[in-house]
Amino acid sequence: MDLELRHPQPERAGRTKPSVIDCDIHPKADVAALKPYLARRWWDYLHSYGLRARHGFAKGYPYPKAAPQAARRDAWPPGGGQPGSDLDFMRQQHLDAYGIEFAVMNPLSPSGQGEQNRDFSAALAAAMNEWQIAAMTAREPRLKASIVVAYEDGEAARAEINRRAGNRDYVQVLLLSRTAEALGRKRYWPIYEAAVEHGLPVGIHVFGYSGWAMTNTGWPSFYIEEMTEHATSSQALVTSFIMEGVFERYPALKVVLIESGLAWLPALGWRLDKLWRRLKDEVPHVTHAPSETMREHLFVSTQPMEEPEHPDHLMEVMAWIGWDRILFASDYPHWDFDDPFLALPASLDDERRARIFSGNARALYRFA
Amino acid sequence: MDLELRHPQPERAGRTKPSVIDCDIHPKADVAALKPYLARRWWDYLHSYGLRARHGFAKGYPYPKAAPQAARRDAWPPGGGQPGSDLDFMRQQHLDAYGIEFAVMNPLSPSGQGEQNRDFSAALAAAMNEWQIAAMTAREPRLKASIVVAYEDGEAARAEINRRAGNRDYVQVLLLSRTAEALGRKRYWPIYEAAVEHGLPVGIHVFGYSGWAMTNTGWPSFYIEEMTEHATSSQALVTSFIMEGVFERYPALKVVLIESGLAWLPALGWRLDKLWRRLKDEVPHVTHAPSETMREHLFVSTQPMEEPEHPDHLMEVMAWIGWDRILFASDYPHWDFDDPFLALPASLDDERRARIFSGNARALYRFA
Repeated sequence: MDLELRHPQPERAGRTKPSVIDCDIHPKADVAALKPYLARRWWDYLHSYGLRARHGFAKGYPYPKAAPQAARRDAWPPGGGQPGSDLDFMRQQHLDAYGIEFAVMNPLSPSGQGEQNRDFSAALAAAMNEWQIAAMTAREPRLKASIVVAYEDGEAARAEINRRAGNRDYVQVLLLSRTAEALGRKRYWPIYEAAVEHGLPVGIHVFGYSGWAMTNTGWPSFYIEEMTEHATSSQALVTSFIMEGVFERYPALKVVLIESGLAWLPALGWRLDKLWRRLKDEVPHVTHAPSETMREHLFVSTQPMEEPEHPDHLMEVMAWIGWDRILFASDYPHWDFDDPFLALPASLDDERRARIFSGNARALYRFA
Repeated sequence: MDLELRHPQPERAGRTKPSVIDCDIHPKADVAALKPYLARRWWDYLHSYGLRARHGFAKGYPYPKAAPQAARRDAWPPGGGQPGSDLDFMRQQHLDAYGIEFAVMNPLSPSGQGEQNRDFSAALAAAMNEWQIAAMTAREPRLKASIVVAYEDGEAARAEINRRAGNRDYVQVLLLSRTAEALGRKRYWPIYEAAVEHGLPVGIHVFGYSGWAMTNTGWPSFYIEEMTEHATSSQALVTSFIMEGVFERYPALKVVLIESGLAWLPALGWRLDKLWRRLKDEVPHVTHAPSETMREHLFVSTQPMEEPEHPDHLMEVMAWIGWDRILFASDYPHWDFDDPFLALPASLDDERRARIFSGNARALYRFA
C-alpha cells in the first residue's frame, strides 16, 4: 500500500499555525443528495438515461484505482459515504485540523458540467449550487461555494450566475479546462460578462469533457501523461483567452487557474510576447503584451506545484507570476492533497507566505 | 508590407565571423524534381491522386499568406523557383553570407511524411532522400541531408534508414512532431532502433499531419495560437518518449527538438519528476528521473527562441537544459529566420556561444 496516500494528522501544536484560506477543496454529493433540488422531470431523466458526459468520468474520475474517487485513503468518512460528503468529518480532518479560515468548494461531479443534454446539464448545475448552500455553507461558515454552470450553453450559464450571485456564499464561477471549444471563444463570453458584472472571479479547474483527444497525437498511454497534460491544456486555454481578446473585452475579469501547476507560465508568456510582437496584425483586438495581460488577470493555485531542484527557480517563477497572484490550495480530499504545513517552500519569507496562504485569496474573493 | 520579412544582407565584415553550423534549413524540391527518383507507378499515382496528407499542407504550409511558402520575401530565387530550391542562390544568400560551415537540411514537403497511402509515403520519402544527395550534397559539401522516413510505417522507415545510413552525407533521421500516435509508442520503435544502430540522432521538426485536433479543445482560431501550440505538442511528445521508456530501451538514442522553442523544458522536467516520484509504479520501465533523461537524451535547436524580459532567465533555462545540448538553427529560408549574427543573446560568453554556434552540432552530427 502506498503510504503517501495516508496523511498523518497534523500535530504541530508547538508551531504557530498560519492563517490559511484553502482555494480548492472538493465536496461530494451523491446524485441522490441532489434530488431535493432537481425537478421531477430531471430526476426521472437521470434514472432513465444516466449521466452522459463526453469522454466523461461517469464511472469515477480517471485517477488511479489505487485511489478510488481520487481520494486520500483516510478521507473516506468512518460513518460511510464518499470522501468530501460528510461535513463533520471534513471539519475534523481538514478545517479544524489545519485551522482553515475559509475553504472554496469546487464540486466536480455530479455538477452537470459536460452533460450532453444541455438542459439537463443546466438543471444539474443548479441543483449542485443549491446543495452547496443547503448542505454545506449554511451549516459551516468557513465553507464558500462556487457557481457551477452548464458552460457549453453560454446563456444558460449567464442565467445561473445571475440567479446565484446575490448570495455572498458564492465566491466564484467554476469552469473546467477541457471544453468543447477553446475557452476564449465567444460562446463562453456570456459567462465572463456575468462574472464581471457580479464581481466574481472565474475559476478554471483542470479536467473536463471536451470530447477531443487529450493531445494532438491522440490519447496517451499512461495516467502520468494525463496528469502532465493538465499543464499543456492550460497553456492552450490561456493562449485562447489572450488571443481572442477576452481581457480587452472584460478588463475587470479575473481568472483563477486551479490545479494546473504554475511553472509553465513564464515560458508561455515569453513565447506569446515574441509571437505577438511579430504577428499582432492577426489579432488587432489584442492591445496589450500577453505577459502583461497574464500578470494582470491570472491567478494560480498552488497544488500541485512543481518542485525544481533549485528552490531559487521556484522563487523566480513565482516572482514572474506575481506574489499577489498565487493562492494556496490543498485539493482536499484528493490523493495528491498538499498539506498546508508542508506545501510551501521553506525559503519563502513570512510576508510572501502569508500572502499565498491567505492574503491574496482574501482580496480576490473579498472575504471579510 | 512587413519589413521584418526582409533581411538585410549581412555586412559585418569588420567583425570576426564565428564558425556556424546551422541545424535547420529547408531545401525545397518541386514535386517535378522528384520524378527521376520515383518509380513510374508512383509518378502516375501522384498525378492521379495527388498528395493526401491528413489535415495536411497540400496547399502550402499554414503560415500567413503574408509569407507564401512560409518564406522570407527576399528568399525567392531571382531566377525562379521556390525558396530553398536554387542552390546557387542559397549559397549566396545564406551559406556564403554568414560563413556557414555546415547546414543540416530538413525537407518538409514533398517528403511523403503523413501521406495516407503508406507505400506512396515511403516512395516519396525515398525520392526526397535521393534528391537531397543528387541535387544538393553532391554539389555542395557544406550541406548535409536528413533521412526522411514514412514514420507511420515503422518497418518501412527502418528499411529506408538502413538503405541510406551508409552515406555519411545523411546526418540524422527526420520526423515531424504531429504523428498519428504519440511518438513514444512502440510503432515508432523500429525507427529509433535503426537510428541508434547507425549512430544517427533523430530530429523532430514541429508540424505534421496527425489528423487529431491541434488542442484538446479543438482547433484554435488564430495562426498565432498554432505557433504557440508547437511548444505544447512538444511537451506531450517528450512526455511520451519518457513514459513509454524509449530511452531505457535505446540508451544511445539522441533526439533533437527542432523549432519547438526551449524555455518550457525546465518546467516540464520539474512536473514530470514530481509525478514520476509519486506514480512510478505505473511506469516501472522508467528507471531514471525524467529530468535526468531529458538532459541526457534531448538536444534543442535555437530558432525560435523565447526572449525573457530578463536575459538571466534565458541563461538559467539554457543552463538547465545543458550548454552542450543547444544547437544553433536559422530556419532559412522561412519568414521567422534567425540571423546568425543577431540570434544569440549578447550576455552569452564566447565559449558557450561557440558551443551553441558549432561545437555541439559538430559533436552530435560527427562533422569532421
